[in-house]
Amino acid sequence: MAPGAIETSNGTIAATASGDVVTKGVAKTHQQQLEGQESHDIVLKSFRLLVADLCQQFNGGHPGGAIGMAAIGVALWKHAMRYAPHTPDWFNRDRFVLSNGHTCLFQYCFLHLTGYKAMTMDQLKSYHSERVDALCPGHPEIEHEGIELTTGPLGQGVANAVGLAMATKHLAATFNRPGFDVVSNHTWCMVGDACLQEGVALEAISLAGHLRLNNLTIMYDNNQITCDGSVDLTNTENVNDKMRACGWNVIDVEDGCYDILGLVNAMEAAKKSDRPTFINARTVIGIGSSAEGTADAHGAAFGKDDVANMKRANGFDPEEYFVVPQEVREFFADLPDRGAQLVKEWKSTMDDYSKQHPELASRFKERMAGKIDPRWKGMIPAREQLPSKPTATRASSGLVFNNIAKDIDSFMVGTADLSPSVHMAWPGKLDFNRPDLRPARGASGDYTGRYIHYGIREHAMCAIANGLAAFSPDTIVPVTSSFFMFYLYAAPAVRMGALQRLHCIHVATHDSIGMGEDGPTHQPVELATLYRAMPNIFYIRPADGEETAGAWTAAIQAEGTPTIISTSRHAVPQLAETSRDGVLRGAYVLRECEDAVLTLIGVGAELSHVVAVAERLRSQHDVRTRVVSFPSWRLFEAQPVAYRRDVLRRQCTQAVVVEPYAPNGWERYADAACCLTRFGHSLPSKAAYRYFGFDVDSLTQKIIGYIERLKGDELLAREFIEL
Amino acid sequence: MAPGAIETSNGTIAATASGDVVTKGVAKTHQQQLEGQESHDIVLKSFRLLVADLCQQFNGGHPGGAIGMAAIGVALWKHAMRYAPHTPDWFNRDRFVLSNGHTCLFQYCFLHLTGYKAMTMDQLKSYHSERVDALCPGHPEIEHEGIELTTGPLGQGVANAVGLAMATKHLAATFNRPGFDVVSNHTWCMVGDACLQEGVALEAISLAGHLRLNNLTIMYDNNQITCDGSVDLTNTENVNDKMRACGWNVIDVEDGCYDILGLVNAMEAAKKSDRPTFINARTVIGIGSSAEGTADAHGAAFGKDDVANMKRANGFDPEEYFVVPQEVREFFADLPDRGAQLVKEWKSTMDDYSKQHPELASRFKERMAGKIDPRWKGMIPAREQLPSKPTATRASSGLVFNNIAKDIDSFMVGTADLSPSVHMAWPGKLDFNRPDLRPARGASGDYTGRYIHYGIREHAMCAIANGLAAFSPDTIVPVTSSFFMFYLYAAPAVRMGALQRLHCIHVATHDSIGMGEDGPTHQPVELATLYRAMPNIFYIRPADGEETAGAWTAAIQAEGTPTIISTSRHAVPQLAETSRDGVLRGAYVLRECEDAVLTLIGVGAELSHVVAVAERLRSQHDVRTRVVSFPSWRLFEAQPVAYRRDVLRRQCTQAVVVEPYAPNGWERYADAACCLTRFGHSLPSKAAYRYFGFDVDSLTQKIIGYIERLKGDELLAREFIEL
Repeated sequence: MAPGAIETSNGTIAATASGDVVTKGVAKTHQQQLEGQESHDIVLKSFRLLVADLCQQFNGGHPGGAIGMAAIGVALWKHAMRYAPHTPDWFNRDRFVLSNGHTCLFQYCFLHLTGYKAMTMDQLKSYHSERVDALCPGHPEIEHEGIELTTGPLGQGVANAVGLAMATKHLAATFNRPGFDVVSNHTWCMVGDACLQEGVALEAISLAGHLRLNNLTIMYDNNQITCDGSVDLTNTENVNDKMRACGWNVIDVEDGCYDILGLVNAMEAAKKSDRPTFINARTVIGIGSSAEGTADAHGAAFGKDDVANMKRANGFDPEEYFVVPQEVREFFADLPDRGAQLVKEWKSTMDDYSKQHPELASRFKERMAGKIDPRWKGMIPAREQLPSKPTATRASSGLVFNNIAKDIDSFMVGTADLSPSVHMAWPGKLDFNRPDLRPARGASGDYTGRYIHYGIREHAMCAIANGLAAFSPDTIVPVTSSFFMFYLYAAPAVRMGALQRLHCIHVATHDSIGMGEDGPTHQPVELATLYRAMPNIFYIRPADGEETAGAWTAAIQAEGTPTIISTSRHAVPQLAETSRDGVLRGAYVLRECEDAVLTLIGVGAELSHVVAVAERLRSQHDVRTRVVSFPSWRLFEAQPVAYRRDVLRRQCTQAVVVEPYAPNGWERYADAACCLTRFGHSLPSKAAYRYFGFDVDSLTQKIIGYIERLKGDELLAREFIEL
Repeated sequence: MAPGAIETSNGTIAATASGDVVTKGVAKTHQQQLEGQESHDIVLKSFRLLVADLCQQFNGGHPGGAIGMAAIGVALWKHAMRYAPHTPDWFNRDRFVLSNGHTCLFQYCFLHLTGYKAMTMDQLKSYHSERVDALCPGHPEIEHEGIELTTGPLGQGVANAVGLAMATKHLAATFNRPGFDVVSNHTWCMVGDACLQEGVALEAISLAGHLRLNNLTIMYDNNQITCDGSVDLTNTENVNDKMRACGWNVIDVEDGCYDILGLVNAMEAAKKSDRPTFINARTVIGIGSSAEGTADAHGAAFGKDDVANMKRANGFDPEEYFVVPQEVREFFADLPDRGAQLVKEWKSTMDDYSKQHPELASRFKERMAGKIDPRWKGMIPAREQLPSKPTATRASSGLVFNNIAKDIDSFMVGTADLSPSVHMAWPGKLDFNRPDLRPARGASGDYTGRYIHYGIREHAMCAIANGLAAFSPDTIVPVTSSFFMFYLYAAPAVRMGALQRLHCIHVATHDSIGMGEDGPTHQPVELATLYRAMPNIFYIRPADGEETAGAWTAAIQAEGTPTIISTSRHAVPQLAETSRDGVLRGAYVLRECEDAVLTLIGVGAELSHVVAVAERLRSQHDVRTRVVSFPSWRLFEAQPVAYRRDVLRRQCTQAVVVEPYAPNGWERYADAACCLTRFGHSLPSKAAYRYFGFDVDSLTQKIIGYIERLKGDELLAREFIEL
């Protein structure tokens, strides 16, 4: 055995001088060592023809990648991966993420072949059909059996996989005990050339290498083809060197289309690595088709003639479709039983663990069941426990949540390098970090820690949070934090969390122009509009400490819905009439006034401005107004129509909303807006408010002017007015 | 001289075995070779104390980075960079981008010291003041003299710099002739630890290495400190190896705080490199302050006492503020003249060039003046030249623009790897790419090419486009293209383009649920809401070929405003009444009807559905409706109020909008909406429309139902209804 070579259960892998493992393309010899070698040939053929048929039936889809990756799939599902087709939600299963989600047939076909019950042949044929209850959408979706996460937007899956691997590391460090590896699963992530170009993946790769997530393996379908043609058009970097520089173990597999033993050995070596592993498998897109090795194989069916030719070349009948030969069925037939055995062994370990460590096991079972310790409700401070003096809502947010984060172990709280700003760190927090750094390099913590320094990687932070949340529902509830503006960087990941109904809580500070000197690049004048329009997510702007308590209550309660809590950088007064219960209803009457001529709507950091304006209008102008606090549209929209009409009373009053954001959508609730339809300006907080007319003087003048205009133009009542 | 060492005008730099240049920290010896060495000491001291004072005056700001980078700034502005303080817009100036924009005082102070007229001491003192016309906002802003681009959101500047360097490469390849290097400038980009963690920068770095942009240098302020503390908390990668793997030349400078010769030599070597250069300069954040080397030096003033102590330690009077000693003034005093000389020499070259190459020079001058060849207007096809049969608007978009792109050299057109989908490639296009790839690796093109394969890097694509556009107004008009959904990945860069009023055109295809099988991850149900709310940008959804002609006209005309042209994947019919001029007005009456009970508003790919519904309502239900086509809110909002009222006629009809997007904001123009408040579904185009009720049958039923409801509830007229 060569120096540095690695011995596995299946053979020996040579190692290069650099210490990186390379499996050479001597596939024939190696394959013969693998039991079932004869079967591999027919399995690969059948799989590839099945994919070609599934795309051809409706003349669409993405066949090339799936076909090129066939051997990787066999190595994974038949050999390397630990899972249970008949217990798809087994807690300790290996997780598989298809980051190149457009190759979804790859996963669907293996789910079918390995015995996942939901994925019948009839379902497989629903790919690209008009069937609305299909399990084979154009990209894998989390709702369906055997799918860990919805993927498709490229690069996301890599970061999701990092999150899954972090979840394993954390749960293992927290709950495993000597002799009881109750959490020990591996995360496998399939990527194409594209995923490795996307920034979100590059951010996550850097963090995974830093964290030494040796329970994570990326398998690179290195076919060197993208939509535009050769990868060389746009990317000639040395990807292996780049991965090594990021702290990854790199293994090359030269013949990724056929060398199943090489792939299995690489995967086995990955399981034993002290670092995350990158398996660089050279493949050929659409292998065997006439489009083989070209971009034409990527995103279109091969054509009837070509599929027929492929069948002939492989000894199949061109007139038969969707054929899975009996020997292929037999090849995968043991997997449900193998999976059942794994589950049985794990359950047996769990039984012993429960006896040896009854308290720990009890808590572990609660976590597995997604039970968040209900004590959190009692830990939300009462109004009297919150500061009475003006306080930034970001600070109130910390006061509300830090104690919960400290004691309720479901929460993993992190920040994209803004710990001093976001107030999410609690005294005595332990970082989630690799233990070997401590304490030499300024770092502390280990994998049991629940405070995550994500680095300046907002997009990856939120995509990783999706992975943490998707590990198992509410076993981990990830909390992210950054400036609100940088949730635009993270928006694609926040969106994926909303689409998947993942329970993530995003704590955004520095909302509105009140954040001040950082100026227009940091003043989020239009971002709330996006999050108010995005389905399945709560965007909440609390006005003071009391409302911040309500926002956190809503966010923690919101199983199946992510929340953005949007807080101020600057101190805002505590208002006597605010109500945490009102926040849960989205909007509520802060000050009623039966003979009001106007309803004034205030939001978040500027609600206090509106209250002051109402007082000024009454005392100096004899104008009577109602005041409504409106922290969240989505929560309000969920209320009964009678409540909504009662709050807004639009039948008898005009309403003016005050918010230094784009007004888009406020037209639903108001007739006019003091709003912002331009970018911000670098000024101290109060000066910025004054500059844009959001100080009490300016607002009062605008509203007086509006009342005057209403008298003069009968059309106004049907037109939304920007003041 | 050691093998591999590089000789520069200022001395010799040792080279390592790897071929990478390293300047060792023997600062004293090296510095003595530099003329003015005695002055460096007082310059560095004065600069650092000036920064400390400027932050202390209002007790805020970011002093630490600027102070740590002082020597880099001296090396750059005094020695390496070619620019002209009194001709700040000199076309061939070196460009400087401060990607770590929060250290803006670094740039402001050097602009002041080197003689930029606008940056007076009085202006410097406006940093963090309430002065609304200040030239010293919290991040550099493009509007101000000497600032190339607005930066702040981390990582953007790196991609901007890549765009600037690409602009130089392209213009040089296009206009330079032997003996006449009329475009020869270098781009210098300052980055901190954070920029190198951001995905947008990592994408751009990969592309820059691929493109061999040897006219680009990144200077890394490697102080190993971020807001949360040591970089080691989150990043332990080998950044030099990573840069090398990406095709960069790496130069280490061990004492980046004082070794000005080392820095200068590194910069000179960078100018001679065949690859982009990464200067890794080890620095100490806040050097000399009590917070030196810690995160405390990052984002807060040092405190009065500390600043006083710093002054004492450096031999300055603690009671004197904003002191720039005479010898420091003298140190920089030659720079305006040196700059004027550079401009004079360039003008002389230009004169000779104009004689030798009169036609080329004439065109070059037009390009420098930002004149887009006016022939483009005549090249927009007339209605009769566009297809009469149903055609996807993405295809119409290609038909409209490809000829213009081919012949009008101001346009640089690119795609994030979706050439087959976006229809932006014209026959015979030449790629912008490094010439040495051609033709061996499937690539073609050279630096004169105007079609850019950005790779699967949507975010960097749009940030690079900002750099291309910012090189000089309308010298290059960048066109980007991708699926609309991926303009969420790119949104932070698109936003920066809007903030800076850069003339970029973004061509988005696969808008609305009609894009089909790719499913909810690719169906942009809420993204238009963001872009309709974002200031300074046109979002246009054309309905057919005629409207697409209007959209392109608006986009090309829109100097100072970026545009998103949002097109369909699927074929849409050509409607007889559509109008390109109507598009320029944002919305227009497609079918008038004097006694209409309803106005139906249609948009983009679904306008034809609305027209069909109107016909159905009239023929089968005797309901008379008007039809308005509404491709762009922002363009409509710019119209006179009389026009807007005439189009909408809200005083006499209710309006229903039809668009499978989130309705937010349509409340301004309509009373009800057939819209989408949930995520999409993977289905073929027509099936998706049917599933969500956007087929003609469903829409007709919804609108009939709405008319019935209107009769029953007097409140409805004041409430926005989702149908």
